[in-house]
Amino acid sequence: MKISIIGAGNVATNLALALKKAGHEIVQVYNRSDDAGKELAHTVAASFTSNAADLLDADVYLVAVKDDVIAEIAEHLKLADKIVAHTSGTNSKDLLATASSAYGIFYPLQTMKKNSKVDFKSVPLLVEGSDDATVATLEALAKTISQNVHRVDEEQRKWIHVAAVFANNFTNHLYSVSESILLGQGLPFDILKPLIYRSIENLQQNSPAELQTGPAARGDMQTIEKHLMLLGDDIRLQKIYEILTQSIIASATQNHK
Amino acid sequence: MKISIIGAGNVATNLALALKKAGHEIVQVYNRSDDAGKELAHTVAASFTSNAADLLDADVYLVAVKDDVIAEIAEHLKLADKIVAHTSGTNSKDLLATASSAYGIFYPLQTMKKNSKVDFKSVPLLVEGSDDATVATLEALAKTISQNVHRVDEEQRKWIHVAAVFANNFTNHLYSVSESILLGQGLPFDILKPLIYRSIENLQQNSPAELQTGPAARGDMQTIEKHLMLLGDDIRLQKIYEILTQSIIASATQNHK
Repeated sequence: MKISIIGAGNVATNLALALKKAGHEIVQVYNRSDDAGKELAHTVAASFTSNAADLLDADVYLVAVKDDVIAEIAEHLKLADKIVAHTSGTNSKDLLATASSAYGIFYPLQTMKKNSKVDFKSVPLLVEGSDDATVATLEALAKTISQNVHRVDEEQRKWIHVAAVFANNFTNHLYSVSESILLGQGLPFDILKPLIYRSIENLQQNSPAELQTGPAARGDMQTIEKHLMLLGDDIRLQKIYEILTQSIIASATQNHK
Repeated sequence: MKISIIGAGNVATNLALALKKAGHEIVQVYNRSDDAGKELAHTVAASFTSNAADLLDADVYLVAVKDDVIAEIAEHLKLADKIVAHTSGTNSKDLLATASSAYGIFYPLQTMKKNSKVDFKSVPLLVEGSDDATVATLEALAKTISQNVHRVDEEQRKWIHVAAVFANNFTNHLYSVSESILLGQGLPFDILKPLIYRSIENLQQNSPAELQTGPAARGDMQTIEKHLMLLGDDIRLQKIYEILTQSIIASATQNHK
């Protein structure tokens, strides 16, 4: 297919590279700032423009930009009946309704950094479309780069994004909290890595609900009290400890009902 | 060395197996309930007793029992100057001061299940001792099964345990929350696994503080509001979302100071 990429950030870059590699022609990169856009266009042998009026003809236009500028960019797009899709996990496809009669979502559920290439094969790609033909085309396109493609609806996609915040952003923050606790004691974060890797390995075969261990899961109030005392100086960490401990205890109770 | 194992749970079982494999003689398993104790004794070719008065002579006695029964068991131990150590992450070695003049800690920082064998080589083993000779012996013993042995003090060990609760128990609970959100939408937890594995891979080379992404890290209040609205029905998850979001925002502010 002939693809145009709108945006030149992490997602735009990784998608453009994966699509190019899968044999698609990247017709053009459209980006409002010159430098990043030109670099990406050069990398994938596409033309470049910073002006929506100069958009070339393509089969699919992928809008891979920050959530808060999708609507603004969509206003400038006049694509008639060419398929346009954005890559956001939280925004409605309806943001693109003024840009074309065929619009949808092409959402890769993966953390992306510009300088570390993503192997798209296992990346879940969630697609939606304004009509059957659109979703079928986006699904077919997705399948050329990923073996993990799902048709979803707007409600599901929103919840997936929330779930990803819990499973990815929030867990990472807890690692960060852990690291700061250890550094405060002159100890390296490495000391916890075997424990972390083991837990993730266990996740391959088991539901996390079954794998829950620790003071809260045991109802070990003595240890919980000791930990809260130790954290006494740090209200922020104490609050996190309390809320998550309460939630683990509440979940355990639900599971035994 | 000649080792006696006190307890027959997950940690006792895994330690006994690892020590036996490293060439130590497991003299005896002492456990108050017969069945588990006899089974472990049989597995590691040790004798068994459920009576502290019948303890045989050994170089090191490892007390691998639940935190809340260490003190009670210690009362029954009269080991003169033989080394005794417990495997708890939170309790003081002083709990063992009445049992022997040589006491300490032998704490494996790893989640253990009875039926899945732990490869101890990479498991961090944290040791403490009531005197130099004791800690030296426990350290030497630890090094026969692990390449990741650390002498710590009581304060450090307590903080390591708290850090492990954040990095292991709490993260697992967040996976669990994620899973329940997805199941509520008829979607499998598997859809998030590529994201989770990728994040953990990134952790090998980077500090988690550097890897923080997501709405809170971006200060994307619009998405945060949407997520909180979506979670509206579930006060428990909303609370977790709020606290962790606030904490990520507070950390980002600190880092930029």
